Amino acid sequence: MRIAVLSGPNLNLLGQREPELYGRTTLGEIEAAVRAAAAAACADVDWIQSNHEGALIDAIQAMTGRADGALINAGALTHTSLGLRDALLAVRVPFVEVHLTNIFAREPERRRSVLADLAIGVVCGFGARSYLLGLDALLAALRDA
Amino acid sequence: MRIAVLSGPNLNLLGQREPELYGRTTLGEIEAAVRAAAAAACADVDWIQSNHEGALIDAIQAMTGRADGALINAGALTHTSLGLRDALLAVRVPFVEVHLTNIFAREPERRRSVLADLAIGVVCGFGARSYLLGLDALLAALRDA
Amino acid sequence: MRIAVLSGPNLNLLGQREPELYGRTTLGEIEAAVRAAAAAACADVDWIQSNHEGALIDAIQAMTGRADGALINAGALTHTSLGLRDALLAVRVPFVEVHLTNIFAREPERRRSVLADLAIGVVCGFGARSYLLGLDALLAALRDA
Amino acid sequence: MRIAVLSGPNLNLLGQREPELYGRTTLGEIEAAVRAAAAAACADVDWIQSNHEGALIDAIQAMTGRADGALINAGALTHTSLGLRDALLAVRVPFVEVHLTNIFAREPERRRSVLADLAIGVVCGFGARSYLLGLDALLAALRDA
Amino acid sequence: MRIAVLSGPNLNLLGQREPELYGRTTLGEIEAAVRAAAAAACADVDWIQSNHEGALIDAIQAMTGRADGALINAGALTHTSLGLRDALLAVRVPFVEVHLTNIFAREPERRRSVLADLAIGVVCGFGARSYLLGLDALLAALRDA
Amino acid sequence: MRIAVLSGPNLNLLGQREPELYGRTTLGEIEAAVRAAAAAACADVDWIQSNHEGALIDAIQAMTGRADGALINAGALTHTSLGLRDALLAVRVPFVEVHLTNIFAREPERRRSVLADLAIGVVCGFGARSYLLGLDALLAALRDA
Amino acid sequence: MRIAVLSGPNLNLLGQREPELYGRTTLGEIEAAVRAAAAAACADVDWIQSNHEGALIDAIQAMTGRADGALINAGALTHTSLGLRDALLAVRVPFVEVHLTNIFAREPERRRSVLADLAIGVVCGFGARSYLLGLDALLAALRDA
Amino acid sequence: MRIAVLSGPNLNLLGQREPELYGRTTLGEIEAAVRAAAAAACADVDWIQSNHEGALIDAIQAMTGRADGALINAGALTHTSLGLRDALLAVRVPFVEVHLTNIFAREPERRRSVLADLAIGVVCGFGARSYLLGLDALLAALRDA
Amino acid sequence: MRIAVLSGPNLNLLGQREPELYGRTTLGEIEAAVRAAAAAACADVDWIQSNHEGALIDAIQAMTGRADGALINAGALTHTSLGLRDALLAVRVPFVEVHLTNIFAREPERRRSVLADLAIGVVCGFGARSYLLGLDALLAALRDA
Amino acid sequence: MRIAVLSGPNLNLLGQREPELYGRTTLGEIEAAVRAAAAAACADVDWIQSNHEGALIDAIQAMTGRADGALINAGALTHTSLGLRDALLAVRVPFVEVHLTNIFAREPERRRSVLADLAIGVVCGFGARSYLLGLDALLAALRDA
Amino acid sequence: MRIAVLSGPNLNLLGQREPELYGRTTLGEIEAAVRAAAAAACADVDWIQSNHEGALIDAIQAMTGRADGALINAGALTHTSLGLRDALLAVRVPFVEVHLTNIFAREPERRRSVLADLAIGVVCGFGARSYLLGLDALLAALRDA
Amino acid sequence: MRIAVLSGPNLNLLGQREPELYGRTTLGEIEAAVRAAAAAACADVDWIQSNHEGALIDAIQAMTGRADGALINAGALTHTSLGLRDALLAVRVPFVEVHLTNIFAREPERRRSVLADLAIGVVCGFGARSYLLGLDALLAALRDA
Repeated sequence: MRIAVLSGPNLNLLGQREPELYGRTTLGEIEAAVRAAAAAACADVDWIQSNHEGALIDAIQAMTGRADGALINAGALTHTSLGLRDALLAVRVPFVEVHLTNIFAREPERRRSVLADLAIGVVCGFGARSYLLGLDALLAALRDA
Repeated sequence: MRIAVLSGPNLNLLGQREPELYGRTTLGEIEAAVRAAAAAACADVDWIQSNHEGALIDAIQAMTGRADGALINAGALTHTSLGLRDALLAVRVPFVEVHLTNIFAREPERRRSVLADLAIGVVCGFGARSYLLGLDALLAALRDA
Repeated sequence: MRIAVLSGPNLNLLGQREPELYGRTTLGEIEAAVRAAAAAACADVDWIQSNHEGALIDAIQAMTGRADGALINAGALTHTSLGLRDALLAVRVPFVEVHLTNIFAREPERRRSVLADLAIGVVCGFGARSYLLGLDALLAALRDA
Repeated sequence: MRIAVLSGPNLNLLGQREPELYGRTTLGEIEAAVRAAAAAACADVDWIQSNHEGALIDAIQAMTGRADGALINAGALTHTSLGLRDALLAVRVPFVEVHLTNIFAREPERRRSVLADLAIGVVCGFGARSYLLGLDALLAALRDA
Repeated sequence: MRIAVLSGPNLNLLGQREPELYGRTTLGEIEAAVRAAAAAACADVDWIQSNHEGALIDAIQAMTGRADGALINAGALTHTSLGLRDALLAVRVPFVEVHLTNIFAREPERRRSVLADLAIGVVCGFGARSYLLGLDALLAALRDA
Repeated sequence: MRIAVLSGPNLNLLGQREPELYGRTTLGEIEAAVRAAAAAACADVDWIQSNHEGALIDAIQAMTGRADGALINAGALTHTSLGLRDALLAVRVPFVEVHLTNIFAREPERRRSVLADLAIGVVCGFGARSYLLGLDALLAALRDA
Repeated sequence: MRIAVLSGPNLNLLGQREPELYGRTTLGEIEAAVRAAAAAACADVDWIQSNHEGALIDAIQAMTGRADGALINAGALTHTSLGLRDALLAVRVPFVEVHLTNIFAREPERRRSVLADLAIGVVCGFGARSYLLGLDALLAALRDA
Repeated sequence: MRIAVLSGPNLNLLGQREPELYGRTTLGEIEAAVRAAAAAACADVDWIQSNHEGALIDAIQAMTGRADGALINAGALTHTSLGLRDALLAVRVPFVEVHLTNIFAREPERRRSVLADLAIGVVCGFGARSYLLGLDALLAALRDA
Repeated sequence: MRIAVLSGPNLNLLGQREPELYGRTTLGEIEAAVRAAAAAACADVDWIQSNHEGALIDAIQAMTGRADGALINAGALTHTSLGLRDALLAVRVPFVEVHLTNIFAREPERRRSVLADLAIGVVCGFGARSYLLGLDALLAALRDA
Repeated sequence: MRIAVLSGPNLNLLGQREPELYGRTTLGEIEAAVRAAAAAACADVDWIQSNHEGALIDAIQAMTGRADGALINAGALTHTSLGLRDALLAVRVPFVEVHLTNIFAREPERRRSVLADLAIGVVCGFGARSYLLGLDALLAALRDA
Repeated sequence: MRIAVLSGPNLNLLGQREPELYGRTTLGEIEAAVRAAAAAACADVDWIQSNHEGALIDAIQAMTGRADGALINAGALTHTSLGLRDALLAVRVPFVEVHLTNIFAREPERRRSVLADLAIGVVCGFGARSYLLGLDALLAALRDA
Repeated sequence: MRIAVLSGPNLNLLGQREPELYGRTTLGEIEAAVRAAAAAACADVDWIQSNHEGALIDAIQAMTGRADGALINAGALTHTSLGLRDALLAVRVPFVEVHLTNIFAREPERRRSVLADLAIGVVCGFGARSYLLGLDALLAALRDA
């Protein structure tokens, strides 16, 4: 099974960025943990991070025929990007949305997601562990389908 | 470790209730799976379901000194009950909020939660498996704390 | 045919409660008239009144297999209770919503119903007679179905 | 007793118009049923349908001294016509508002009525039978007054 | 000078219609008073009343080249009719808007006018006298222009 | 008869202030015209202008027993001053509200008045002549009362 | 093929009416151009203009069995008429909505259409040419269907 | 004189519950102080606390003929319960609403009360002393009535 | 202890002003009662009333070092004056807000206070007695601090 | 004449992307048809598609002096991009906005365009043919200018 | 060149008033620095501070012919005073608006200014230095004009 | 000291772009003036302009350890980009926001900034000079810190 993991703008700064909010784990450490967990479940991982909305749209379009499912943390684009939404509607790859923070406890404009209603489900609030729980949920859903 | 699992109104009907939306697993089957997973992690489970808001408030108040953490699916009360919110603010037990359905894909009045900003995090959209993922997340958070 | 008639909070006070608004007929008198009209149409009546939302949810859940249709006046819960709504969605018993007063002529928060879109139809504004007109409408709809 | 029955724009198309929503009974058939029921109750019927708001206002004005009560289904004008409202305020004939569909289950702009708070009451959702239930309610209210 | 005086739906009922609100003067009496005042100022009057929006639009269109100014009380159409607004924009005849009642003291939906920003000015709240004050204001404005 | 004429903030600048909007007549010229018209109707005039809300409240309070009616153009305070409103509610002197400009054609925050529903009526849009039309309306209303 | 072309209130004034906004072409000139273009495509044209909403509803109802498609510019009724909407829902004739002006560049209340979501598509902003482009689009869509 | 004192959900936890907000006085201590103050004024006290909305409605209904006035702190139900409101409208017992915290300084959803407009008055923000001030106010109002 | 008592616009008219709403007690009588109660508690009173917002701001600024606490009824300024709010934020004198009427039962714009969240607490609805209850609450709070 | 044709994010997927909504014609096929139609009208075409907002802004800036007009389908950026709007305001090239779907029948957030009020006009709802109709409209407008 | 510097309510308290927000520099110190900087640029300064809106309106009116430009910090009146706005519209003196705090980071009601759209520009957030930067900007703009 | 100056989409067109709004100074001329002023204050300048949001996020991330402060004019992205906001929150470099135009006098959607509450302060409305005033303010703030 092949899983694409997509991280949006500013997630490359994890560990240094507002650590009291996002924690001290770096994105590299999360990548390593996700790759390990995926390997244990015999799944391959495509890892993408970009600060450019257009590059993320390109990456979603490239999933067709190359990924069985996706784990997506679109960062600030979560709340506004109809372009990402359209790409997800176009490729129709099943995905799980994850967030490090509990978005229900954030400022109002961070509480809505223009992507999440297209997802299988959402996991948020558990820091770096949200990625691992989201991976579990995704793999189980793909096995059931 | 002792975990309270709280399910709100109409969740006792799972399996028969709008199965195309909530799935065919019964609440009894979810209870069995949660108890098994908790046992494997050496945790005890207090299982409560009620259709009465007052009974749920009583149950939350009773957690003080008796539960290390809680898994809460308040059903329809999720969206409106300031009474449950006050009880959670009072006992301050760490909890994870779970939903069978992806509430981001529901009707507008089901998309908000008056409890979730008090939670460690939220897991929604994975059917009965939301309870198990939520349990994992809760136990890990309790171990970290 | 078996009909459940459900009356919500404070309807037990009919006759004394704001009589210039709700009239002077007591709930007991309405029950007698409904039972008589149902009997004339060879229908049995289950009569329930409660001030407790949880008890009303229990009563709706208990309709499965025991009632062919329902007549519901949920009182103040009409306007806010997603718990009653979920119960009605779960048991899917056909029902008619009735109100003594013309809810279109009430304060704004009394003009909306979170239940009525699930009903076959609504009868409001005719005082105690709303129950009888609603019963007629319900029985006719059940015969047609 | 003399009853005016008023039907607004597009109701002349009943039977052909969106039958899955409005049913297959024609307005002519409803007229016959209403006339029969009224006759049985010794009441006369003035039957009016028009697609022109001005013509309906003229008809309401003409009720003074000629109708004891009215049954009104203003169709699309229900939701916006302050002109009909003013006419009803001016002639002050007691009336019952009826709708074929359950307007609580319609699109938001169809859920409000600018006439209904002036009515004795409202009956909606029972198809052609809404007219007959409304007639019953109106005649009973006139007898009580 | 030639003045068109336009009265909208239900104004033909003045005197009988909600007299505690609109007073006991009939529209015929107002017409006579306006004609007398206009005659004293050497102005002719075209007097139009209709319950039909389309007829009022026709009447406004017919003003081109035939009226130097207009006095308009559009009744309930004041608050909603973009059709009247377009007609007034098209013929560009200078006009004064009048109301019998003080529309600032009415229900919210009666407080806005979709015509008034096109008028020279507005006179409201003085009962039948609003027409006469409006005529004064209009004639003076036409003389100044 | 004794009439108080109250003009609010910045009206002392009439003639120089945005003349394309408010005209070139000064407040002194308006005062002279109002005094002349009042004299012709055997009425006395108390003329007050202030830029201070408190001074205007004092002036309204002082009307009790000293003025039979008032003509009020509260300028910018029209739209926000609950203090003026309370003073008018307290002294209950009958008054007419006037504006030089057509407030229906102004920016949204200038279209509402927190005083006007207490007035007999409103005259707006006729420049300096609004004061004279308002005086006519006020005197007539006082004679009728 | 038979095409009905419907023009609403005030469109009979085209050419004289706010020409800086709507252009100087008259409705008669547009009719001639549309008839010529339709003839070239072997289609017949029914041409209707009215200032009366009721007359336009009658005209839409009369399309059943007599028109294969329609071109509709409802003028000011575009923005408010649920009666026209219901008529279009009832007869279900395929139609294209056209406007002379770019309604996206108009005042807020002119930017919404209560009809357009029922149309095949919309053409706006090209003056008289909008009718011809709309006719092209309609004929092509009818040929494809 | 007989006074009912009603405390809603979670008030039984006073002293332990968010003490930085609600203080460290327990509900038992407040009860003792209220009973003492009432005794000094020769008034009897019925003391009720419940986490169940239905039980509180029952308690209000039971006041008829048994209480001369009430002191009510409905806790979280203050902000949403139309059921309590209906009960208070039905029994029409005079009451004073009290809150430990200054609800004007709370989150927006805690600033409104669906009960307070029915009260004689409101006392809030003085911690446990709010009950005693409210009792004073209630007894004085009952003596005046 | 030294207490400043501040009363805003139009409160000097108490007794005559809308007595059915505000009662028949004059501000002079309230002053006497407050002075007596304060004296009994060995507190001095500075009594200020003004219809001028600027004068009230001056008075609040002058409290620094001269008043231990304040009792404030800002009248109509309660609902809008950010200037009073800033003055209270600047001098940081502890204060209690009082109102003669129950502001929860007033018109919507009277239900909000831009000062109250800065207060220790609020007492409203008990007529002249609100001042005395507020004084009690203030003195007790100052003694506790 | 030189025409720039700009297509925004995800339009490169046409044909595969939600074909029930957007049709089965690919963007390549649309390009060929547009080039053919332009050639027949002796116009050259610059064809641009990008998923990157910044690249589209660059492309619009590059139009100065190189394009006589533009045909723009900005995809998801239509609804939110003030950057594209600013670029169009800066270069002031005349353009026509086109959409494959009828945006009046889409979800609310797709019904608004932040670009369309700058366009000559809009064509939407005719699938791939929208581009051709838009080209016709653009060329005619350029010839008229 | 002659510059008027206007400071509104409570700015006389600078230095003592919420120093963590507004800093510890007094208004006297700011006046000295502004006078020095103006002198260095050969400009005279009129320095005004008042807590009375009416006095500030008088001061703005007095600027005509006496000031070439103004520096205005209206304090709390910034957000609400249409009276100040009208005065500025009347005298049309060019002005720069300054604030000590960054109003974009304040509470919502402090983020809007009813004056700022009339200003040349706005400087905010730099404490006492905002006055000096604003003076620089004003003098430069006056020299350019 | 090292200052980064960031200019967003379409600012590269300054001088040609809507010159009546943004002036005729080019971005190159502003850069030269800023570099000269910075040099005079012994500060180095990093000058960045891009039409790509992603490139601007990259540039902000690169400031860590390389810039002591920033001057930011994000153009159209000011109003919507949560991605820029997150980058500024992550690197926490002190910055001043500048705009050529007075954003308080722009269209509503241009009046809000999603960045400005993170800034030290804002300077807007002084054309190219806004950059120089902003630089002064920034350097002074950095020297104070």
